[in-house]
Amino acid sequence: MIDTKDVRGILTLVVTPFKKDLAPDQGRWIRHCRWLRTQNCGLAVFGTNSEANSLSFDERMTLLSALVEAGLEPEAMMPGTGSCSIPESTRLTSHAVGLGCAGVLMLPPFYYKGVSDEGLFRHFSEVILRVGDARLRIYLYHNPPVTQVPITLALMERLLKAYPRTVVGIKDSSGDWSNTEAMLKAFPGFGVFAGNETTLLATLRGGGVGCISATANINAAAIHDLYANWQAADADGRQEKLNDFRLAMQKFPMIPALKETIAHCAGDPEWSRARAPLIEFTAEERKGLLAELEKRGFEMPGLAALAEI
Amino acid sequence: MIDTKDVRGILTLVVTPFKKDLAPDQGRWIRHCRWLRTQNCGLAVFGTNSEANSLSFDERMTLLSALVEAGLEPEAMMPGTGSCSIPESTRLTSHAVGLGCAGVLMLPPFYYKGVSDEGLFRHFSEVILRVGDARLRIYLYHNPPVTQVPITLALMERLLKAYPRTVVGIKDSSGDWSNTEAMLKAFPGFGVFAGNETTLLATLRGGGVGCISATANINAAAIHDLYANWQAADADGRQEKLNDFRLAMQKFPMIPALKETIAHCAGDPEWSRARAPLIEFTAEERKGLLAELEKRGFEMPGLAALAEI
Repeated sequence: MIDTKDVRGILTLVVTPFKKDLAPDQGRWIRHCRWLRTQNCGLAVFGTNSEANSLSFDERMTLLSALVEAGLEPEAMMPGTGSCSIPESTRLTSHAVGLGCAGVLMLPPFYYKGVSDEGLFRHFSEVILRVGDARLRIYLYHNPPVTQVPITLALMERLLKAYPRTVVGIKDSSGDWSNTEAMLKAFPGFGVFAGNETTLLATLRGGGVGCISATANINAAAIHDLYANWQAADADGRQEKLNDFRLAMQKFPMIPALKETIAHCAGDPEWSRARAPLIEFTAEERKGLLAELEKRGFEMPGLAALAEI
Repeated sequence: MIDTKDVRGILTLVVTPFKKDLAPDQGRWIRHCRWLRTQNCGLAVFGTNSEANSLSFDERMTLLSALVEAGLEPEAMMPGTGSCSIPESTRLTSHAVGLGCAGVLMLPPFYYKGVSDEGLFRHFSEVILRVGDARLRIYLYHNPPVTQVPITLALMERLLKAYPRTVVGIKDSSGDWSNTEAMLKAFPGFGVFAGNETTLLATLRGGGVGCISATANINAAAIHDLYANWQAADADGRQEKLNDFRLAMQKFPMIPALKETIAHCAGDPEWSRARAPLIEFTAEERKGLLAELEKRGFEMPGLAALAEI
């Protein structure tokens, strides 16, 4: 499903569990990644929903190395490696490329607001030149609701022209379908991923390659089913069902909601924890979430068995 | 002027020069810090105007150590040490405290938007407890136009109550005088710094302790003169003159404008460079800036002599 030259399909923005002392819980994290692989999902570790920016760069590299050492295929991994600084983005990216990851998901530098496309172009250029590895495949991470620093079509055009074999795709988390549509039209053959599964079918119909989804942490199989059957007669019905579930989740803060759902389905309350500045659910939020899950007879097939390994 | 128990006065958000390969230019940086000390300014290195978040954490620690080794007094330093993650903020803060810095200027974690005061309180608490050093003095860095993550009065109240000997002040870069005024009224005795010199006089009259200014990189002496003479008859006139200059600078992107001014006054074009995503001035911007400086007969006294060291 995941191929270094042409990444397609469903990737999960893998959530990161923490121990009581807030250290990353490597064991639970690797188990969760294994489960996601059984659901045919690629591993977009260290995205926004992974609390990546709440981790140190060393913590991220240690985790990624451990994941590869645990036997998971780097060809299925697209770690987030963008940061505010050229040296740190370079360090994370070089490490990921060295491990053989299929690609990296790269945020723009997100501290300064209102920066020019010229400045962003130079930032990405510096990182690409410093990594200096022909194996590098960059998927731009357009997430203006969080970063407040957009990756414009004009910037994409420059990057694609300058680095056609390196800058090969984008995750569009703008939440604005007209933007995804414009990307699909402007750059045929470019690897456009929907930012979540609610636009998966439209993205595939427009020539895109899949989606990179937070909800796939818990609803992986159903999302992958739509990807695998997007040309089937019941595709629109499948999309509607995915949307219903996504909208139910969006009633809650997404990251703790995902963790709480895993905690519930795995019978493992350790999963509930977040690292500040994010916080775990209140008892009331948990009650509301469980009601939504129960209403839909929701489960995470195979998770409980895997959790016992 | 700067005292570990009670930091007061004018601190400069020191700009960071870069070499052609974009490495921090340690020599020029230390010379500039020396000049600022001759102008009675404290050194708020690694603030927003220092391009701090475009530096790696190692670059920041290397620079700070070099500054102390070069003989500048850590008692005059308030490095920025806030980051998106608890471990990195802890690492930078411990390093600064270990060097004997007067205080640290601490951004909130700024990746996630819309986070709760509870989450921010936990973030700051974790850093304080992990640093675990009675010498630590934190100045909160409230800069919502850039971070988009405000430090509310309610959060300040909680932090002050929990860590009264550690959380001792704030830089208010909100650009909203009513917010500075509210802080001054709510927390008498707390070290409130104006976010720039345009509200220096009002801040001092309201019981605040000074300002932490970007423009002080170039206009240090005049800003310090107002601080030293704020109760003099001509204080309002001095404030007006400072405002006129600040407003002239604000016609341009601030960071490259400061660097371009230093380049001009020191006769040293190396200073013009910024690190992406920021960019240096165009020829037209430079022309416009120099016209503003010339109109005011602007100079940076003693800089040229020091630049020859």
